[in-house]
Amino acid sequence: MRQTLPAASAEQRAVGAGEGAVAVAEPPARPRAGRSAADLATRQRDISVSEFFAKNRHLLGFDNPSKALLTTVREAVDNSLDACEEAGILPDLGIEIVPISEDRYRVIAQDNGPGIVRAQVPKIFGQLLYGSKFHTLKQSRGQQGIGISAAGMYGMLTSGRPMTIRTRTGSRQPAHHFELRIDTHRNRPEILEEREIEWDVEHGTRVEIELAGTYKRGRHSVEGYLRQVAIANPHARIVYLPPSSDGTPEPITFERVSNALPPEPKEIQPHPYGVELGVLLKMLKTSEARNLRSFLQAEFSRVSPRAADEIAKLAQIGPSTKPSKIALDSAERLHKAMNQVKLMAPPTNCIVPIGEKLLEQALMAEVQADFYAVVSRPPTVYRGNPFLVEAGIAWGGDQPAEEPVTLYRYANRVPLLYQQSACAITKSAIGTDWKNYQVTQPRGALPVGPAVLLVHIVSAWVPFTSESKESIAHYPEILKEIRLALQECGRRLALHINRTRRAHEEGKKRSYIKKYIPLIGVALQQILALTDADRERTVATLTQILEKSRGEEEQDQ
Amino acid sequence: MRQTLPAASAEQRAVGAGEGAVAVAEPPARPRAGRSAADLATRQRDISVSEFFAKNRHLLGFDNPSKALLTTVREAVDNSLDACEEAGILPDLGIEIVPISEDRYRVIAQDNGPGIVRAQVPKIFGQLLYGSKFHTLKQSRGQQGIGISAAGMYGMLTSGRPMTIRTRTGSRQPAHHFELRIDTHRNRPEILEEREIEWDVEHGTRVEIELAGTYKRGRHSVEGYLRQVAIANPHARIVYLPPSSDGTPEPITFERVSNALPPEPKEIQPHPYGVELGVLLKMLKTSEARNLRSFLQAEFSRVSPRAADEIAKLAQIGPSTKPSKIALDSAERLHKAMNQVKLMAPPTNCIVPIGEKLLEQALMAEVQADFYAVVSRPPTVYRGNPFLVEAGIAWGGDQPAEEPVTLYRYANRVPLLYQQSACAITKSAIGTDWKNYQVTQPRGALPVGPAVLLVHIVSAWVPFTSESKESIAHYPEILKEIRLALQECGRRLALHINRTRRAHEEGKKRSYIKKYIPLIGVALQQILALTDADRERTVATLTQILEKSRGEEEQDQ
Repeated sequence: MRQTLPAASAEQRAVGAGEGAVAVAEPPARPRAGRSAADLATRQRDISVSEFFAKNRHLLGFDNPSKALLTTVREAVDNSLDACEEAGILPDLGIEIVPISEDRYRVIAQDNGPGIVRAQVPKIFGQLLYGSKFHTLKQSRGQQGIGISAAGMYGMLTSGRPMTIRTRTGSRQPAHHFELRIDTHRNRPEILEEREIEWDVEHGTRVEIELAGTYKRGRHSVEGYLRQVAIANPHARIVYLPPSSDGTPEPITFERVSNALPPEPKEIQPHPYGVELGVLLKMLKTSEARNLRSFLQAEFSRVSPRAADEIAKLAQIGPSTKPSKIALDSAERLHKAMNQVKLMAPPTNCIVPIGEKLLEQALMAEVQADFYAVVSRPPTVYRGNPFLVEAGIAWGGDQPAEEPVTLYRYANRVPLLYQQSACAITKSAIGTDWKNYQVTQPRGALPVGPAVLLVHIVSAWVPFTSESKESIAHYPEILKEIRLALQECGRRLALHINRTRRAHEEGKKRSYIKKYIPLIGVALQQILALTDADRERTVATLTQILEKSRGEEEQDQ
Repeated sequence: MRQTLPAASAEQRAVGAGEGAVAVAEPPARPRAGRSAADLATRQRDISVSEFFAKNRHLLGFDNPSKALLTTVREAVDNSLDACEEAGILPDLGIEIVPISEDRYRVIAQDNGPGIVRAQVPKIFGQLLYGSKFHTLKQSRGQQGIGISAAGMYGMLTSGRPMTIRTRTGSRQPAHHFELRIDTHRNRPEILEEREIEWDVEHGTRVEIELAGTYKRGRHSVEGYLRQVAIANPHARIVYLPPSSDGTPEPITFERVSNALPPEPKEIQPHPYGVELGVLLKMLKTSEARNLRSFLQAEFSRVSPRAADEIAKLAQIGPSTKPSKIALDSAERLHKAMNQVKLMAPPTNCIVPIGEKLLEQALMAEVQADFYAVVSRPPTVYRGNPFLVEAGIAWGGDQPAEEPVTLYRYANRVPLLYQQSACAITKSAIGTDWKNYQVTQPRGALPVGPAVLLVHIVSAWVPFTSESKESIAHYPEILKEIRLALQECGRRLALHINRTRRAHEEGKKRSYIKKYIPLIGVALQQILALTDADRERTVATLTQILEKSRGEEEQDQ
């Protein structure tokens, strides 16, 4: 099986591999007419990114009708919330699902956002990979510029209906109405209708997509999803009109629990650690910085003048060299040096937590429970990317006590609904030893108890395992932060569980006293022939004494 | 938490949701200057598909250095084999890994394929989503036109080096040398160098990519991968030059076990079942067919004239209607009708199995074992897509007896190396009850024994769970076919295991006879005072009798 060819120079060797092989090969059998390179060439052509994702749309979360419906709502909600926050507007969302037939629905999403400039509408909705967030390092819900146009594409593909958009940028501006679809062949928008319309909304956007879908109840229902959205977005108000057979749906409203917008995440420069050589080369070519020193300070975060000089020195490049003049070999030294020099961790104002107080209020508003604990961890870093973890637990109430806890997973305020078992959050939740906190936990499984467990990861770049953004990759730094947050929640929960248990025994004793002392009173009255007044005084005093003694017991514990 | 708004007409209601919401909203708090729609517009722009995959390259199998190295080899091998087969050439591949530093390597892949027409080279290697296979329904290794250019992009990104390509389409043609990289900003090739060169190869292509990688030994090594390739491609010859510190690697050659090319898979038309409305609409618009009847017969497989008329009738459309004249509502009826009419399953000549005989030979050539069983199932269909399953087992030999069997997974002759646990093949292998076949199997795990288990799925459209093509989706039809194939292998294995066990006891008996009869002979000689000749005759006869009786025992079993 193994044979040895004579060794030779790398160049010859490699050629030799192919060549020698050709040499010893038997005369090729030709069972059929083969195609020439020219023939093959005629069949090669561009594949547009929309053709690609239309055929591979399971990668975007459109694998089946029920998931497709939910994904469509999710993309619309993400866009609306991002737009409102960027514009400094408290989000007011309206979501409606209109049943067309039992396997077809019309999804309607409306917001009070800043609206969209007329010229941008077709690109934003009728083209994959178009947006404002992909190139910035800053926390946001959307990242790729795929979501909503992919939803429109799925709608067109399954219902044949174009998406309709209505948008208005201000009271002094006209409202615009669009009907458009993606020309998947060119990944460009195809506008079927466009006109100005009367719209009694001051500013905002409204999207309608008709699609093949099935409407699910329960955990993966639109309502369940919006409830989770409300928890992570306490500043948003959402009115939801579910599908109804008689055309008169009962609206479900998720009121905002806060009138303050979250502070805006700042956009940051990449951190020198974890920047790749190829990226560095590109930056050097395109940078407007006059010299290496200013290049390093301007294009990266956490590079002080001193650090810049240190890097230049390590790389053996003059600090005043023009960036575009730096050749490949020097660039490689520069790249090494950037990773060697000691630097501060990246700034963390590019990520904004929900905050313990708000998150707890939101949990209380949406989840009926007896006890709540919420923890917001300080920011830290994975692979040069700032991130932080928030966790919360809602315990007791009307939640099923004999089932595994319900796990709510979030990334940048967006609920993650699928692939739970593949997610770093699930792994950490299972990895935490809940027995320490008075909670039963089957081996290698989520704890069992009447609780909702919530974990929120915030980052300028969330490491999703797929475009459909359903689960988070298992970076050790991330797993650790989640575990620490859950442990803190666990400790507080344990206190609560102990306290309630004591209070319970507590109550028992009291009821005994209440029950028997009067009888003792009656007995004494008969034995000592007391008056009713005496009897009542005795009963009162006895009660007092016993209550007191119990109080002291309490102290001792 | 729930509040009820007055019901209204669908139109008003939906507007109402957003509007009413706006109405009851508190005056928006403005903690910061918000951006106007115009501000936002200025920040929006195109994202090229290469920018997208450069940032999300884990989706393509470039998550870490060791995987990236292997993925690069895989993409090169897939392209070479596809090209050779399309051209009707017996593949001769040369693969070399040249170490540059301990975290950087140069991957060199050369084939004796048809070569590439000069004008096509830049697009094929310097642009994502370009190729000939995406739009055809036919078995092939590559599908998306992403692989090799993504590898080149990763190389550029991590090493700063462009990829070099050398190609020649025939002895009368000049050879061309290219150095190029992807301009990720535009997803277009950037040619750094191009010239004609002398090349002592008649026809073929040679690709070189330098990249950040780590070289692994064992299961996920390049050698291990190529061995698996050899098994599924018995008609290919592969010479591999592994990295060597002293520059003199020992070549490893995988000889071909067959000189016959596999028959060429035929391209088929889509089957009416499972075609989507949106696709149908597009086909109707672009079709050159004169009328609906000929449209249905020409553009789909398995639609007879009778079936075509039946469909038209069901859809209440005249069979002679011009396709482009068919409006949305009629198209919807047509779409329904196409799925209602009874039709033959799609043709299966678009997929080609390796075949039991060849697969067994290949297994024997690459895996040392005592027993081999190979099964090739007849083609069947999932979601309108033809597919078939082949399975094989190599048992015994020098393979570890106390460990789980080694599982080789293949799709369209390509080994799948990662995400084993997520794959339909693994699920079926675990789901099969191996105890029935004399093989121990821990609960919910792969069987334990000295074996390599092989499963190959062939399809015109393999349902991968990600672009990196690492595992196969859990379609029930696919899971079932795999199980049936494995069960058949299991039955044959059981026979072998029983037979060897019997042969073993067998041997014991014989050795007893050989050992004791001579002694009996000696004893008899002394007792009966026989001559040596008598003794020997007696011994011979005794042996004969006993052998015979044993023979009869055999019969009885």
